[in-house]
Amino acid sequence: MYDIKQAQEIVNKALIAANVSKEPAGLYEPIAYALSVGGKRLRPALTIMGCNLFTDSVEGAIDAAIGIEVFHNFTLLHDDIMDNADIRRGNPTVHKKWDENTAILSGDAMMIKASQFVTRTHESYLKSVLKTFNKAAIQVCEGQQYDMNFENQSFVAEENYIEMIRLKTAVLLAASLKIGAIIGGASSEDAQHLYNFGENLGLAFQLQDDLLDTYGDSKIFGKNIGGDIVSNKKTFLLIKALSTAKGDGLTELKDYIKREEFDRDHKIDTFKRIYDSVNIKEATEERIKYYFNLANEELDKIGVKEEKKTLLKEFCESLMVRTK
Amino acid sequence: MYDIKQAQEIVNKALIAANVSKEPAGLYEPIAYALSVGGKRLRPALTIMGCNLFTDSVEGAIDAAIGIEVFHNFTLLHDDIMDNADIRRGNPTVHKKWDENTAILSGDAMMIKASQFVTRTHESYLKSVLKTFNKAAIQVCEGQQYDMNFENQSFVAEENYIEMIRLKTAVLLAASLKIGAIIGGASSEDAQHLYNFGENLGLAFQLQDDLLDTYGDSKIFGKNIGGDIVSNKKTFLLIKALSTAKGDGLTELKDYIKREEFDRDHKIDTFKRIYDSVNIKEATEERIKYYFNLANEELDKIGVKEEKKTLLKEFCESLMVRTK
Repeated sequence: MYDIKQAQEIVNKALIAANVSKEPAGLYEPIAYALSVGGKRLRPALTIMGCNLFTDSVEGAIDAAIGIEVFHNFTLLHDDIMDNADIRRGNPTVHKKWDENTAILSGDAMMIKASQFVTRTHESYLKSVLKTFNKAAIQVCEGQQYDMNFENQSFVAEENYIEMIRLKTAVLLAASLKIGAIIGGASSEDAQHLYNFGENLGLAFQLQDDLLDTYGDSKIFGKNIGGDIVSNKKTFLLIKALSTAKGDGLTELKDYIKREEFDRDHKIDTFKRIYDSVNIKEATEERIKYYFNLANEELDKIGVKEEKKTLLKEFCESLMVRTK
Repeated sequence: MYDIKQAQEIVNKALIAANVSKEPAGLYEPIAYALSVGGKRLRPALTIMGCNLFTDSVEGAIDAAIGIEVFHNFTLLHDDIMDNADIRRGNPTVHKKWDENTAILSGDAMMIKASQFVTRTHESYLKSVLKTFNKAAIQVCEGQQYDMNFENQSFVAEENYIEMIRLKTAVLLAASLKIGAIIGGASSEDAQHLYNFGENLGLAFQLQDDLLDTYGDSKIFGKNIGGDIVSNKKTFLLIKALSTAKGDGLTELKDYIKREEFDRDHKIDTFKRIYDSVNIKEATEERIKYYFNLANEELDKIGVKEEKKTLLKEFCESLMVRTK
C-alpha cells in the first residue's frame, strides 16, 4: 500500500511525463507554468490511495488522477482572474504574468486537457468515472458562484456557507477518492462510503483553513494571519460570530465591517477579542471534529482490511494535526 | 432520412428538454440565455445527419449533438470576452448583460455541461466519441490562440491562416459529423471520410464568410459589409491582396492599414478597388470551390447509397449558394 508521499511521487512523475507543451506556445506555456508551480497534488494522491485500498495495481488510476489535478489547477487559474489575485503559491498568477485573455483561453484548454486525461481510463470504468468527474466539476462551479454571491450579501446563513464549501472544495476531494475506488474495482457501496469520507474530510479541511487564517501560526500556515478578517471574508468564524455575539460585541463587529479605513492589526485584534468572547475558536474546532468523525465513520464502513485503511487514516490525521 | 430542417428541429426540441436552469441562478441564467438566443444549430444538425447516413434511428446521437452545440456556444461566450464584443446574434453578449466574471464562470460550467451531454452516449461508442470531441475542442482553443496571435502580427502567411481557420472552425464541423457517424455505426474509414468532408466544407464555409464580409449583400448576409476591412482583420482576402498586389496598390494598402483615422466608406472602397485590381474575389472563389470539391470527393468515397448522401449534398450546396 502506497502512502501519501509515494502517491504524490507517482503523480508528479506522471505529470512530467504528460508534458503538455506544444504549439501554439501562447496557449501551452501558461498551462505548463500553472502545473509547474507546485501544490500538494493532494487530489490525485487521494485518487491513487483510493484505488490502492481495493487493488495493489494503481496504474489504471494514474490518468484520471492527472486529469483531476489538471482540472483543479484550471479552477485556480480562472478563480484567480475572478478574484483579481496577483499571487498564487508565491508566484505571479497567469493573468498577471501574461494577460487576462491568455488566462481565460489557457484555462479553457486545461479543462479540456483534464477531460482528455480522465477519458484515457479503461472503458469498463469510463462512464462511471466520467459521471463522477463531471458532476464534481460542475459542483465546483456552483460553489464558486455561491462564494461570489456571498461577497455581495450582508447576511450568510451558516448552512448556506457549509453548502458553499461542500460544493467548492469538498466534492472534488470526495470525487478524487471515489474515482480511485471505482478504478480499483470497489463495490458501489464502498465507492460511495469513500466519497462520503472525502466530502466530510473536505468540510473539516476547509473549516480548519478558516480557523488557521485567524488562529494559526504564520510560520506553519504559510500565509499572513488575519487576511480573512481584514477583507471581511464571510468565513465560518465570522458567520458564527455574527449569529452568536450580542449587544456591544455585535454592534462593534458590524460597525467595523462597514469601516473602509482602519489599522490592520487593530481590526484583527478587535475581531479576535469578540470571537474569543463568544468562543468561536472552540465552536469551529467542535465542528471540525464533527466532520472529521463523520469521515472516519464512513471509512469504518468500507469492506477492506483495517490495515489497508491505516495509511488513509494517518494521512487525514496529518492533515488535521495543524489545528492543534 | 432527415433533412437539415428536421435535424435542427430534433436538436431544438432536445435543447428545450435539456433545460439547464437550476440554482444558483447567477450561474445558470446566463447559460440558458446564451443557448436561447438562437443560432443555426448547424453542428448538432450535422451530427444527426452524419448518424442518419448510417442508420435510420438517430436517437443515440442526440445527447452528443446537444453537447456539441453547448460546447460551441461556450466558445462563443468566452471568445466574446476576449474580443470585447458587445453584441452576438443581435443581443447583448453575456459579459455585457451580466459581467465578465459571470461570463467566465458560466462559460466554464457550459464546457462541463457539454461534456456531460456527450458522456451520455452509449458505452459502446463512448471512448471513441469522447476522443473525437475532446480533440476537436482543444483544437478550437489552439485556433483561437492563433487568431489572437495574428492580431499582433504584421504578416500572416496564407498557409498559417488556413491552418488557423481549420482549427478554429473546420475541425468542429468535421468532428460533429464524425461523432454522428460513429454513433450510427459507420466503419472507421467511412467516419474518417465524413470527417474530411466536414473539414473541407468548414474551410470553404469560413472562406465564404470572409468573402461575404466584403462582397456580400448586407440584406442576405445579415451584418454590415466591410467590417473586416475597417478593422484590418487578416482574412484570406487581405492576406492574398498583400501577397499579390504590387507597386502603388500595395503601398496604398499598407499605408491605409496603419492609418488610425479614416472615413469608413472610403476605406472600404479603396480596399475593394485594390482587391479588384488583383482579382481577389476570383482567387477566393476559386479556393472555396477547391475545398468544396475536396469535400464532395470525400463524400463520394463513403460506402452508403447515393440517395442517402443526397440530403447532405443538398445541404452543403445550400450553404454555398450564398456566395453567388
